[in-house]
Amino acid sequence: MNKLDFSSHKIVCLAGGVGGAKLADGLAQIVPPQNLTIIVNTGDDFEHLGLTICPDLDTVMYTLGGVANPGTGWGRAGESWRTMEAVKQLAGPDWFSLGDVDLATHLVRTQMLKDGETLTAVTRHLCRQFNIQPDVLPMSDWPAPTLIETDDGTLPFQAWFVKERWQPPVKQVVLPEDVRATPAVLKALENADLVLIAPSNPFVSVAPILNVYPIRAMLEDIPQTVVAVTPIIGGQAVKGPAAKMMAEMDLPVTARAVAQYYGDLIDGFVFDGQDAGSLEGLSAAQLCTDTWMHSPVDRARLAQDVLTFAMQLAGSE
Amino acid sequence: MNKLDFSSHKIVCLAGGVGGAKLADGLAQIVPPQNLTIIVNTGDDFEHLGLTICPDLDTVMYTLGGVANPGTGWGRAGESWRTMEAVKQLAGPDWFSLGDVDLATHLVRTQMLKDGETLTAVTRHLCRQFNIQPDVLPMSDWPAPTLIETDDGTLPFQAWFVKERWQPPVKQVVLPEDVRATPAVLKALENADLVLIAPSNPFVSVAPILNVYPIRAMLEDIPQTVVAVTPIIGGQAVKGPAAKMMAEMDLPVTARAVAQYYGDLIDGFVFDGQDAGSLEGLSAAQLCTDTWMHSPVDRARLAQDVLTFAMQLAGSE
Repeated sequence: MNKLDFSSHKIVCLAGGVGGAKLADGLAQIVPPQNLTIIVNTGDDFEHLGLTICPDLDTVMYTLGGVANPGTGWGRAGESWRTMEAVKQLAGPDWFSLGDVDLATHLVRTQMLKDGETLTAVTRHLCRQFNIQPDVLPMSDWPAPTLIETDDGTLPFQAWFVKERWQPPVKQVVLPEDVRATPAVLKALENADLVLIAPSNPFVSVAPILNVYPIRAMLEDIPQTVVAVTPIIGGQAVKGPAAKMMAEMDLPVTARAVAQYYGDLIDGFVFDGQDAGSLEGLSAAQLCTDTWMHSPVDRARLAQDVLTFAMQLAGSE
Repeated sequence: MNKLDFSSHKIVCLAGGVGGAKLADGLAQIVPPQNLTIIVNTGDDFEHLGLTICPDLDTVMYTLGGVANPGTGWGRAGESWRTMEAVKQLAGPDWFSLGDVDLATHLVRTQMLKDGETLTAVTRHLCRQFNIQPDVLPMSDWPAPTLIETDDGTLPFQAWFVKERWQPPVKQVVLPEDVRATPAVLKALENADLVLIAPSNPFVSVAPILNVYPIRAMLEDIPQTVVAVTPIIGGQAVKGPAAKMMAEMDLPVTARAVAQYYGDLIDGFVFDGQDAGSLEGLSAAQLCTDTWMHSPVDRARLAQDVLTFAMQLAGSE
């Protein structure tokens, strides 16, 4: 593929946690910042120890800000744990690890929200402090908690994901009704030339974004090119519970099943060379490439491949 | 004075911050724990960074738990400041210093309050973790914010005390109406043989406790002996703004003025040798002794003196 000029295209990326943060970082390396918007899942957000915690927003923010812990997929590099050790000594809830430095993000966010700021404004404030230039937006300014229905009952997302280490089998992901997009999200999607769905968990990272009214309808109706990148490679999730959830929900654990899950919503689908030949006959256009992102260089390369593919699709529509 | 046996007397101490914590610690050294209740001012409490912070309760708790920072009068020994440094880097409010270890107290308290526990139950839980045996009680389970009226307007207590470093001259201390005592506080006062008013600021530490209905009425009406210890020595406050406030409120900055402020509420008044001879003619019985508490041994000695004096008064009534 030829290298194309991205400077005149407005790009929106829908992102969840680690996979979303990595593709967002790749895009940020090659797209002019004024043309790039990352819309982030907030279905994982929760209140804990009095604080409003937004795990996916923080993973994206720390990754783009160059302060993410490279080993964990969450939290900050160079973290310490004095507060959590003291919480444990006080017999407080210590199942959700909050580092001493990471805590500052939640404290400042909570204070600003209590002062009446929107989550959009708070996120932009925090991103400025990390010198992040692309616009990072929460999918909504209002709580939109994802629930996980299991055999043992319905759990708030973090109770299932962290406290129960995503072990209780998933019967169904339950998304809230009547969640509204923000003016900033609507504007970004209206102006977008290309919409990318990051290699995030389709059910608990991407679906909550699509569930925010009217994001799904906008992607279906308006003429932008929508391209998704698979989070499943060779029958495995790169990270997290996507593969386990698919098996529990009686879906084949394949990139093809992800593409079918997105269905008519997407114009193009990017999958890994390990799955070459397994996606024949789908209606979406396909790009087979190396989708693993082991390093920042990998992120930029995948972003380059995905954008080039998406622009070619946009040009041919 | 002879040493007396305290084991059969129920003792209640009304306490604010540092002075209250030190006398409480002295009492805890010599009184059987089941006979000692500390009722603590919560008028200084505030919400900050999403957390419920109770400075006087924490000072008493950290002092009795042996983990107080001996240099500051607030916070914990061996503290670190990574979270606050990060809050500052995120352009968050950093005027109220919260150490990494201290933060755990506020996080656990806030979570338990959100879970529906009373501040009394939360405080008892925290005290158990610090192996504190006397009963430490908030004066009320409901918010009772003290306001400071200054020339520049009316400020919440911590905004005046910490953010403005108690510099704006005080016109008046404004206490809330209709604050109720808890069942635990009522029971402790009903059962008390001796009530001690610690050498805390009369206006912003003790008055908020007396303002909680029906604490003042109980002290006036029921037959326990009430003894106050002066926070003013030789025309100076041992710590904090008491002397400055007295001058600004056109009161003489003397131990005598403190005794007169408490008036008929007290049966006895303990003042320092530096002020010998200056309290003649007052109706309350008087004990002149060394009231400075430089060390834990000083605290126990003053507690011994005050209790002996109070028991002699109780015996003579």
